[in-house]
Amino acid sequence: MLTITRLDQQDARLLIDGARQKAEEIGVPMCIAIVDESGSLVAFERMDGGKITSVTIAQDKAFTAAAARKATHEYNEKCVPGSLVFGIHTALGGRLCVVGGGLPVSVDGEVVGGIGLSSGTPDQDMACAQAGIDHFLKTRA
Amino acid sequence: MLTITRLDQQDARLLIDGARQKAEEIGVPMCIAIVDESGSLVAFERMDGGKITSVTIAQDKAFTAAAARKATHEYNEKCVPGSLVFGIHTALGGRLCVVGGGLPVSVDGEVVGGIGLSSGTPDQDMACAQAGIDHFLKTRA
Amino acid sequence: MLTITRLDQQDARLLIDGARQKAEEIGVPMCIAIVDESGSLVAFERMDGGKITSVTIAQDKAFTAAAARKATHEYNEKCVPGSLVFGIHTALGGRLCVVGGGLPVSVDGEVVGGIGLSSGTPDQDMACAQAGIDHFLKTRA
Amino acid sequence: MLTITRLDQQDARLLIDGARQKAEEIGVPMCIAIVDESGSLVAFERMDGGKITSVTIAQDKAFTAAAARKATHEYNEKCVPGSLVFGIHTALGGRLCVVGGGLPVSVDGEVVGGIGLSSGTPDQDMACAQAGIDHFLKTRA
Repeated sequence: MLTITRLDQQDARLLIDGARQKAEEIGVPMCIAIVDESGSLVAFERMDGGKITSVTIAQDKAFTAAAARKATHEYNEKCVPGSLVFGIHTALGGRLCVVGGGLPVSVDGEVVGGIGLSSGTPDQDMACAQAGIDHFLKTRA
Repeated sequence: MLTITRLDQQDARLLIDGARQKAEEIGVPMCIAIVDESGSLVAFERMDGGKITSVTIAQDKAFTAAAARKATHEYNEKCVPGSLVFGIHTALGGRLCVVGGGLPVSVDGEVVGGIGLSSGTPDQDMACAQAGIDHFLKTRA
Repeated sequence: MLTITRLDQQDARLLIDGARQKAEEIGVPMCIAIVDESGSLVAFERMDGGKITSVTIAQDKAFTAAAARKATHEYNEKCVPGSLVFGIHTALGGRLCVVGGGLPVSVDGEVVGGIGLSSGTPDQDMACAQAGIDHFLKTRA
Repeated sequence: MLTITRLDQQDARLLIDGARQKAEEIGVPMCIAIVDESGSLVAFERMDGGKITSVTIAQDKAFTAAAARKATHEYNEKCVPGSLVFGIHTALGGRLCVVGGGLPVSVDGEVVGGIGLSSGTPDQDMACAQAGIDHFLKTRA
């Protein structure tokens, strides 16, 4: 039998709070998705003004980061024609997302969930996702 | 041009709060989804212990209730063999959900969004969805 | 509560009229899709001779332009291997379309819908989409 | 943070062994799927002669039983026209399976995974699924 540690609802709220604060700071309303370590949705928030397409993309970024235990921008880097990773962006009906903005959430070296941001540029999405993790790690201690 | 009124993030939080309180009261951890009047997700919460299958079902109930402006249990009632409504439960790839637990959210006689609950029995899901609406209507006034 | 402005059926007819006139002028029968600001279809016309594949592609272009508030050719420009946006073209099961020919429709600086054209070259599709918007903005005033 | 217990690969082999022995005993080659408590596949075996359609159905039965924490035949019982549960069989694109043959696997009162059998009659599928659980619970002690 395996014993797994995963985000609970309270953890998810901290992640969302940190990401939202950064999104407000840079003035970009975001879609924010938090999933557990298996990629199942725990919490979601579309800030007023977040894009409709981002409802799904934020969830897919979080899913990919948690379930593959890899940041989506790391997949992006290798997902170039000629690389053997190329094509992974169409896997799972396109649900495996290689656009920057999805980060695994780790505690004590173990992936316990994922966070996905969408509505800004990939750089903005990544910065807000990281802000969510920073806030979570700082506050839960 | 049409002018539309729809739930914002603050409204969504009130709806979730009311539904969660009822879910805690009856001791059934739920998945709670709030969508706008077009059926796009605004907020989602999986209470600790909510079912994985309910992540999607709660969203589909909310989507159906808002986008069709009809409670899912009202579709259910008519979705019986021999009725001309029968078969609607397979529409949109099964996303149109006729299981009880999805309610449209109306303000001033206009549908402004939807709420979907899943993880309990349909009766429990419906009671929590209604509790969300009651709390929202009472608190926003 | 949010207040949203979106295209109505009359607006949609103007958009289609402008796009059709341009399509007839260049001699390319087109599929023309108009969606509201949430990406839901408001009107669609397949001119006699329009391509069958374009029935879906025109809708996806209009959906993408409205729901992401960005022209599909702008996504196309950034969706190149090595860019952090790469991979967005497979999002939403491929429904997020980065082929040129989808434009958001804005009034008073706000996106109120989208128009998507398909059956010609991307340049032809874009020109007809723009013609639809020009006709709409000029006529409604 | 939540702590979760789930089936590991060794547990999955025990479940499959018990199910296969019963399938051989009754002379029906089966598809056997084992998933963890989130519904993700851990192990799968198509006995020589197992049906091709059952490759997916066995997985969907196991997924449903684990992720909804309910035997598929229990859903079946309530999924009748006129019941508020009716329509659940088309949820998740039909992946939520209400055909008999999927059972949750519980240890110490907690669902740790699911087993799904397909290729025989529902009664045969259910008997083999139960045989898998019996063997697992007896052997792991």
